[in-house]
This record gives sequence, structure tokens and C-alpha cells, in this order.
Amino acid sequence: MVDMLEPRFNADGLAPAVVQDAADSKVLMLAWMDAEALRRTLETRRATYWSRSRQTHWVKGETSGHRQRVREVRLDCDGDTILLKVDQLGPACHTGTPTCFDATLLLSDPASADSPSTNRLADQVFEAAPAPAAPASAAPASEAA
Amino acid sequence: MVDMLEPRFNADGLAPAVVQDAADSKVLMLAWMDAEALRRTLETRRATYWSRSRQTHWVKGETSGHRQRVREVRLDCDGDTILLKVDQLGPACHTGTPTCFDATLLLSDPASADSPSTNRLADQVFEAAPAPAAPASAAPASEAA
Repeated sequence: MVDMLEPRFNADGLAPAVVQDAADSKVLMLAWMDAEALRRTLETRRATYWSRSRQTHWVKGETSGHRQRVREVRLDCDGDTILLKVDQLGPACHTGTPTCFDATLLLSDPASADSPSTNRLADQVFEAAPAPAAPASAAPASEAA
Repeated sequence: MVDMLEPRFNADGLAPAVVQDAADSKVLMLAWMDAEALRRTLETRRATYWSRSRQTHWVKGETSGHRQRVREVRLDCDGDTILLKVDQLGPACHTGTPTCFDATLLLSDPASADSPSTNRLADQVFEAAPAPAAPASAAPASEAA
């Protein structure tokens, strides 16, 4: 049994929208929607967001031409996060990169520069390991899943 | 030329973290991080978040066993959204579904035959709460074009 939810917006009337490329599954950007932006997006299939800096709605690509045709819209289990799958025309980021996550890498994949065998070994270690004791700096066990 | 950014947190000291499966690229969930959660995640490669409801840090999978080993961490072009690529052990969602976005489909891909209840829920969204006059959250200097 699956519960269908209605969208929930925060105290500012907004919910984060994660935007994913329908073609290659890359996460393109995160933007914000109010109820009206969501309504317009569902109605038109043109991704429409709320600009917190300009305090207005904006249609992605309206000025840049880098539009998003919306294929699918989902809510998360709390109803307070939106996931869009889109056909992205041109680069998604206003900086000109394909996604908004291309510039800053805080932590790199140790497998990316290593051999596939190293990668597989790490996978085995991860999957075989019991839950380790919390590191000294970690918070006490929580009820979170 | 690429600018490397420092993470930026909102007025509550938090930033949204989009969590993507490194294996199949599905978007698993969205959670929140403060600077300490991000620091622990980078240090331990075990995804650590801030629970807004319980006001405490939590390590994903600490009680459920559905852990996330973090392969990669990126920031978006504003530095205020975090993207994690993880190895997800078991279902990511506390409801038991593989991702937190499996339950509610607001708009289906016209190229696929999906939920018959899409129209009904979309209608509800059309009738949802009116758009706020002026959402007032702190705004980044730039948003995607």
C-alpha cells in the first residue's frame, strides 16, 4: 500500500525541487517552488520556479534559452521535496556548465582514479562490515533510519 | 576557469543535501546538513545529517542498517546545495521503498504508461494553497538562469 501525498511547503511557502536530467540521470540543479510554480510546471511542463533573490517566478530558460521540458514530477515521502525529471536544453547552470554541481568537488570518489578491482574490494568491505561503533565525534544513536 | 566555493548555510545553519545512488543514479532522498554534519560526512564517508524535527545529528542507517557510504560530495554553483553520491545499503527510505520518491507521482512521463491517479492529484495541486505574497527566506545572490 502506497500513500499518495500532497505537496507541503515550508514556512516561506516554498519546497526544494531537485532537477534531474531524464536522459543521463545527472542531478542538474536545485531550485525552489511555491504552490503556484508547481501548478504552472504541472500545467505547462515547462519548469517554473520561485526566485528567492528576485522574489518572482521564473521559467527556466526564459532568458537563456536553456529550457527544461518536464517529463515527470514526484514528491518525497514527506511531501516536502519535489523531484523533476526533465529534458534539458543546453547547459543547466547559469555559469555555462552542464550541471550546477560541476565546479566544486569537496570529496572525490576513491574509485574514480583507481582500478575497478579496488572499487569492487571496497564494495565488499562495505557490504560485509557490521555497523561500526560510532566515531568519537559522532552523535549518540538516533531513531532515524 | 572554475571557481571553487565554500559551503554556505541558510539562516538556520543548514543546507539541503541531495543524495544520489552512485550505482544507478537514482535520487534517493533529500536531507539537511549543518557544517558539523558535512564535516563528519567528509571525514568518515558515512552520510551524516541534521534532523530538523529532532534537532540532532543522525547517521543514515545507524538504526536501520540502511547505511550510505559516501563516494563523492559536491557543491552547487551557489555553494548552498550539497550533492552526495553514495553506495546505498538496502532501501534509502524509512518507508521501505528504494528511494523516498517512489510513492507520489504528480505528473507522469507521457512516454511511459504510469499512475492513473496522476490527474486527480494534479487537480488537487491546482486547488492547493495560494501562492504566498512574498516568500521571505534568505536569498543567494545568484540563481540559475
